[in-house]
Order: sequence, then C-alpha cells, then structure tokens
Amino acid sequence: MAVNNDDVKLIGAWASPYVMRPRVALNIKSVDYEFLQEQFGSKSELLLKSNPVHKKIPVLLHNGKPICESSIIVEYIDEVWSSSPSILPSDPHNRALARFWAAYLDEKWFPNMKGVITAASEEEKNAAVDQLKMEGAYGEVSRGEDFFGGEKIGFVDIAFGSMLGWARAIQVMAGVKLLDEEKTPGLVKWAEKFSADPAVKDVLPEAEKLVEFSKLLSAKFKTAAASS
Amino acid sequence: MAVNNDDVKLIGAWASPYVMRPRVALNIKSVDYEFLQEQFGSKSELLLKSNPVHKKIPVLLHNGKPICESSIIVEYIDEVWSSSPSILPSDPHNRALARFWAAYLDEKWFPNMKGVITAASEEEKNAAVDQLKMEGAYGEVSRGEDFFGGEKIGFVDIAFGSMLGWARAIQVMAGVKLLDEEKTPGLVKWAEKFSADPAVKDVLPEAEKLVEFSKLLSAKFKTAAASS
Repeated sequence: MAVNNDDVKLIGAWASPYVMRPRVALNIKSVDYEFLQEQFGSKSELLLKSNPVHKKIPVLLHNGKPICESSIIVEYIDEVWSSSPSILPSDPHNRALARFWAAYLDEKWFPNMKGVITAASEEEKNAAVDQLKMEGAYGEVSRGEDFFGGEKIGFVDIAFGSMLGWARAIQVMAGVKLLDEEKTPGLVKWAEKFSADPAVKDVLPEAEKLVEFSKLLSAKFKTAAASS
Repeated sequence: MAVNNDDVKLIGAWASPYVMRPRVALNIKSVDYEFLQEQFGSKSELLLKSNPVHKKIPVLLHNGKPICESSIIVEYIDEVWSSSPSILPSDPHNRALARFWAAYLDEKWFPNMKGVITAASEEEKNAAVDQLKMEGAYGEVSRGEDFFGGEKIGFVDIAFGSMLGWARAIQVMAGVKLLDEEKTPGLVKWAEKFSADPAVKDVLPEAEKLVEFSKLLSAKFKTAAASS
C-alpha cells in the first residue's frame, strides 16, 4: 500500500548497486515511485540537468526536486517519510556507528571487492578479501539480531546488501567467495535473510544476469577499443 | 558558558583540517572538551584503541564512547546537543543539499586543492583550480545570507572552512589563490566572515604556522628518505 501522493521518480539502472539503495529504502517506506532507467553508454538530459556536478545515478526526484548520492538519498527518504519504519537508529551513537560502517563500505570494502577481480595474483586476491572487516562489524552492530539494523533492515544493511548481487557475480567470475561459511558465518546468514526480505527480493539483481551483463560490457569495451 | 557535565575528549592535532571540524562544532554548541593532541609520526594507544579500523584523527570520546570520521562526528554533536544552535538545516531537502556539498568537498575539492601543489605545469594547476565549484554552491545554498548555513555557520561552512588555513598556506607556498576576488567574490567575503566567527577564530590555524609546519614535515621526510 502506497503512503504517498507525491511525485516520486528515481533515475537509475537495474544493475547498479548504488541505485538499489534508494529502491530498497522506498520499498521499506511503501513509497510508490516511477523508475526511469538510463541506457548504458549514454546519459539522459534529465540526468545531466538533475545531477550536473557528478552526472551519476541514482538521482531521486521528489516533486521535481533532485537529491543525489545514494546514501544521502536513503537518509532523505528516512527523514521525509518518517512515520514509517525507520532506517537510521534513533540513538545518536548508534546513528554515528551506522554512518561509520556505511562510509567504510564505500571507501574500503567496495574498492577491495573490485580488487578481487583485478588482482594479479592469488596473494593479492587473498589480501583484498582479508581486508573485509564486515563480519566483525555485523557482530558489533547487530547485537545478536538478524540485521545490522536489529530486527529490521537498516542503514548498513541497505548500504552493504546493495552489493550482494555483485558479490555473488564475482564468485562466479573470479571463483572467490566474498562471504564464506567458515570465515564469515554471520554474514552468510545475514545475506540470506536480507535477500529474502520483501523490500529487497524484487530489486536485488540475480548473479547470473550480472555475469551476462558483465560479459556484454566487456565485449562492448573490446569492440570500442578495436575500432578506435 | 559550557552546557555539558559530560566527559568529552577530542583526539586530534592542531594542524589537521579534519580535526578542526568537530572543534568548531563543539564551540558552536558551547561544549567544554579536553583536546588530546597526537604527536606527528606516532599514534597513541588511545587512538589505536578508539579507531581500530582507520587509526586516524579526529576521534571524539563522549563519556568514553568513541565516534570517528569528521563529518560523522559533527552530525553526532548536532544530534546530542540538539537544543543549542543547530548545524544541519531542519528541512530534509536542505539537509540533503548540505550533505551533498560536504561530501563533494571531501571527494573532489580537497583532492583538487592538493593537486594544485603537486601540479607539474601551469595548465595542470589551473585545471585543478578551475574544477572548484564552491562559488556556485555558495550562491545556491546561502540564498543571499552570509553563510552556507544561512545567518549562522552550518554543516557546509564547517566542512569547507576547515580547509581555509591550508588554502591560505597553499597560496603562500604555490602562489595560487584558491579564493580569488574576481573568480570567487562570494567565497572571499564568506571566508572573512567565517574566520572571524567566535566559534572559529581560536581553532583556525594561521597560514604562516602551517607553512612552517609543512617545511618541517618536508625536512623530516627528506631525512627519513636519506637514511633508509
């Protein structure tokens, strides 16, 4: 059931983990929105006008006003539709902790995740994976509950969970398990719960589709390089 | 007049722009705190224990609980001491805008600012300076008032203003005006008002001291390189 009579649009693309974040947040809040998908390799006039600084997706358009940057959009959604289930914790220290781990994911975890694919050797691959601190964070933040956000999906769940499709695709492509029953048992359990959540399951891209998408991209790059 | 009976400590260093952010925020809120300065070239046990992930200053210790990352600390201070002048705007869209520009400063502006020093040519130097979009942001966000935050110093003022000492030091060292009467008249006026504010003037490092500090650092690096 939708809670909004507002005009809500999201400029994005199905395969982007960053776009998945506001999609999950809007689902949690039961906000109806129109999903405007960008075509790969070009940028729409609307995107260029709405995010002239970075020219990147996602952009949320709320009654025509643009909001940019995935984590900032998620906080915005939490503040505007504040009566629905909250995404950020209410306690300031827990909020700071949630923001800390969300920032850590963007600054460290995801670059490391990409490093797994580009690693030149097994050592480099393992070094990239070994730097993943999120199992410890899960223990610290979830306090024995299912999610980083406690009983419900919260800010860190959204930030981290948006990468699950790509993490699984990397497992297929590079043969590296980023979440592993032995090393990260908490995260394996968490990933299952997160993926099955009603706010998530329809917007989390399947690994197989992402692998196909990767192959297409790679072929396009090769064609472009060969013809230049 | 202090508003707190809490135990508030800040692990930092006088020359760090990132440390200046929570110092200004604590001043705005009239919160008394103990300033624990790290020595350059070593990290205290307290720092390593309080920020084991990044091992970086600043760290705020509030009744013993650590909060890390400068912008996250500023938001924390705003939320905990909420009855005093607010740092983030109350309107969700304006909050998102403030967070957007604070993130832009960290991701784009400051790396460009450093690029001015390391630029190999005049073209590179100008390219780095030309990428500075903050004059436009000032016009957009301040809406004709003195500060990005309106009549009072807010989140973007703190994020940006923390770099003023180093911007002035770069002017001395590299001969490049990052804020310029012709190109950025709004920011020149803003920088004067910001620097003179009671919450700022005692914690904004003087350019001359930063230049001296830079020379010392540079000499230390050379000695270290020569002896290795």
